[in-house]
Amino acid sequence: MTLSEKKCIPCEVGGPPLPVQEAERLLKEIHGWTLWPAARAISREFKFPDFKTAFDFVAKVAAIAEEEGHHPDVSLSWGRVEIELSTHSVQGLSENDFIVAAKIDAVL
Amino acid sequence: MTLSEKKCIPCEVGGPPLPVQEAERLLKEIHGWTLWPAARAISREFKFPDFKTAFDFVAKVAAIAEEEGHHPDVSLSWGRVEIELSTHSVQGLSENDFIVAAKIDAVL
Repeated sequence: MTLSEKKCIPCEVGGPPLPVQEAERLLKEIHGWTLWPAARAISREFKFPDFKTAFDFVAKVAAIAEEEGHHPDVSLSWGRVEIELSTHSVQGLSENDFIVAAKIDAVL
Repeated sequence: MTLSEKKCIPCEVGGPPLPVQEAERLLKEIHGWTLWPAARAISREFKFPDFKTAFDFVAKVAAIAEEEGHHPDVSLSWGRVEIELSTHSVQGLSENDFIVAAKIDAVL
């Protein structure tokens, strides 16, 4: 099953985050995302021709986040969206972050 | 006429930004906004009970921005929105920033 076909599952609070090696492996299954030092988060910048198109993309990201119960940090400005994903309950990354990233990639 | 009744007008590119004293005067007509040093920008943080409510607020802000043709930088995360306004063409603040801020205040 590909990441974008999976569903997010609730993370064990205080459970271990993904090891860096596992995060690096999952990173290969998504597109254009940057893995932060010590695998603390992943982020990706998206460019658009205007504010409206950028906002419409944020609306799709918000729908995915609600559907999965897993919410990114979103920066929206004229023609630009930055999405940052991490899992607060494990203080790092979980597979959920990569599932949401793959679903975001799929709406483009 | 109050700020929220005014409409944004196109700024002269390279024109002067609002003097600090004028920005401080307009700041008194909006609510909870912070004036940045040297009157470079204004920003305000908004808290919400969940992601969905925060996103719905961003959607209203985006509609105001499109209506006025003046677009803020928006940070959206779970239960929190931060809005930053400045006018790139004057490298500082214009009355448009305060007009959009007042209209954002009015949707709350």
